[in-house]
Amino acid sequence: MTTVAAYAAPSAKAPLERTTVERRAVGEFDVLIDIKFAGICHSDIHQARDGWGEGIFPMVPGHEIAGVVTETGSGVTKFAVGDRVGVGCMVDSCRECDNCKAGLEQYCAKGNTGTYNALDKNGDPTYGGYSTHIVVDEKYTLRIPDGLALDEAAPLLCAGITTYSPLKHWNAGPGKKVAVVGMGGLGHMGVKIAHALGAEVTVLSQSLRKQEDGLKLGADHYYATSDPKTFETLRGTFDIILSTVSAPLDFGAYLSLLKTDGALVNVGAPEEPISVNLFSLIGGRKSLSGSGIGGIQETQDMLDFCAEHGFGAEIELIGASEINEAYERVLNSDVRYRFVIDAATI
Amino acid sequence: MTTVAAYAAPSAKAPLERTTVERRAVGEFDVLIDIKFAGICHSDIHQARDGWGEGIFPMVPGHEIAGVVTETGSGVTKFAVGDRVGVGCMVDSCRECDNCKAGLEQYCAKGNTGTYNALDKNGDPTYGGYSTHIVVDEKYTLRIPDGLALDEAAPLLCAGITTYSPLKHWNAGPGKKVAVVGMGGLGHMGVKIAHALGAEVTVLSQSLRKQEDGLKLGADHYYATSDPKTFETLRGTFDIILSTVSAPLDFGAYLSLLKTDGALVNVGAPEEPISVNLFSLIGGRKSLSGSGIGGIQETQDMLDFCAEHGFGAEIELIGASEINEAYERVLNSDVRYRFVIDAATI
Repeated sequence: MTTVAAYAAPSAKAPLERTTVERRAVGEFDVLIDIKFAGICHSDIHQARDGWGEGIFPMVPGHEIAGVVTETGSGVTKFAVGDRVGVGCMVDSCRECDNCKAGLEQYCAKGNTGTYNALDKNGDPTYGGYSTHIVVDEKYTLRIPDGLALDEAAPLLCAGITTYSPLKHWNAGPGKKVAVVGMGGLGHMGVKIAHALGAEVTVLSQSLRKQEDGLKLGADHYYATSDPKTFETLRGTFDIILSTVSAPLDFGAYLSLLKTDGALVNVGAPEEPISVNLFSLIGGRKSLSGSGIGGIQETQDMLDFCAEHGFGAEIELIGASEINEAYERVLNSDVRYRFVIDAATI
Repeated sequence: MTTVAAYAAPSAKAPLERTTVERRAVGEFDVLIDIKFAGICHSDIHQARDGWGEGIFPMVPGHEIAGVVTETGSGVTKFAVGDRVGVGCMVDSCRECDNCKAGLEQYCAKGNTGTYNALDKNGDPTYGGYSTHIVVDEKYTLRIPDGLALDEAAPLLCAGITTYSPLKHWNAGPGKKVAVVGMGGLGHMGVKIAHALGAEVTVLSQSLRKQEDGLKLGADHYYATSDPKTFETLRGTFDIILSTVSAPLDFGAYLSLLKTDGALVNVGAPEEPISVNLFSLIGGRKSLSGSGIGGIQETQDMLDFCAEHGFGAEIELIGASEINEAYERVLNSDVRYRFVIDAATI
């Protein structure tokens, strides 16, 4: 056990503050990571404020982690001291179910082990990336390619893979028209990745406030959803609509923008049930779908893909003392496009 | 123009009664069909009672038509006098849009022309199969293979294709587990077709009342959805759930029965919007989908498939004077499994 510095929410709805947590001793297949950067994901705020219930406190959020290996267990073969590595939303899974065997650890039949706000296989709480160090099994540790700066790579571990996985699964690529709903942390990565995959990309955002950025990041078109004409103009246009927002949409209106056989894939979702008329699916063999993060190999593929295409996330680097203020700004959609904590300030 | 006998609903909610309607003169590409049998589809009742609004009265329902060609237009090449033919839910479409060109006439961008309760390209109302004769463009006319009895073939034109199309599209076949929700006109065809495609078939019905029939028609398993244990036992089981019912289901419960990447495909639907929590899609990359009838070539493929496998629908043959009584019985789920009108009695 090692005591390390961290920022934690001491209880539901309390501001985060500096504290210390215990990291387990480095096991046979573990790596000890000197955390350099940790992204702030909207879901960190949900969980730190116990929006989904059953939160484990004190809670150290953070599942967009980039750092450097400083120690390896005796059985570790994938990594060596000095390697640049990342950790995403999960640090373990059962490894035995069909999904784990198929590289779909995110859908582990027994549930994967979250990087924070979860209990590991020994029943101990997991603590996330708002910290100076973390100990992780090498199987759930990713390699960050040399071409990627660590600070810009951190958000790829959640925002990157959460958009990459469904875009790949639903075959975004040349000849396909993809809409990305929302131009936040996930949305801006969706735009970059869909564009890099070769798709024709449209941003559907509440306003045109971020239009210039969207076009710069790779969008071919940009529409305001507050303008009802948008829904007339774009009727029957898209093969894939990737919704990254957690606001309850008018799903009938968005489904009308799909071509026959199109899919409206949700990676964001409101906490409350949504309402949809099934005839809006039947009239065009459409699908309302969902997708959660991605598998471990797929996350590595995504990092390699981003490095090949020369992009990470668009970030605002902050010190740890600014976390609570950053949370408020995320809630006000006032970030372009991901806050990343410099772990040296923790 | 020819005057022919028919059963029509004179106005919304009025009982059907014998009358006459005008059929257009046989055009260059038309066939005149001597109707032998017409199935009663649940949607006939919806429309005759104006449940979906904007009904065109008097209305002659019927889009499950089987008969014999008695006259052909000068340009007809597909059919000759004496051929056994069928007509399904549509009698025309724009023929020019991407969907029409792709054999997806059911999703015609301009809307296909319904066999009844629609206006044809001349603005004249279409009248359906509860009649002695119908004139249809050969392109929208299907060949009924010799192996199929005409009375058992009639319901294939809607109930058959509506279940065949999504089962093929979502790849039902060997190694796949398919659940069919509802054991009515559509459901019993879903069971037969999914079984013939090689899938492992489970019926999910409100009760076990029709279990013996279900197993006889090809189901491997049969569960009552009124028993909460069903949802525990079958959690995470199915690749495809085909819902043929129009009752509002507990969609969260049904989605929990899907495997990762599974699809809950609705061919029946309640008129009101349904409620679903998107997290039940995200946690397993699941889809809530819809499908409507099938294309013309696909309908022919379905008829050929059923003939090869030696089955039509399970029917109760009735005289035309029994139509109103049959409607009541359909509403009470008291039919095994499709009423078919003997057109000789009209």
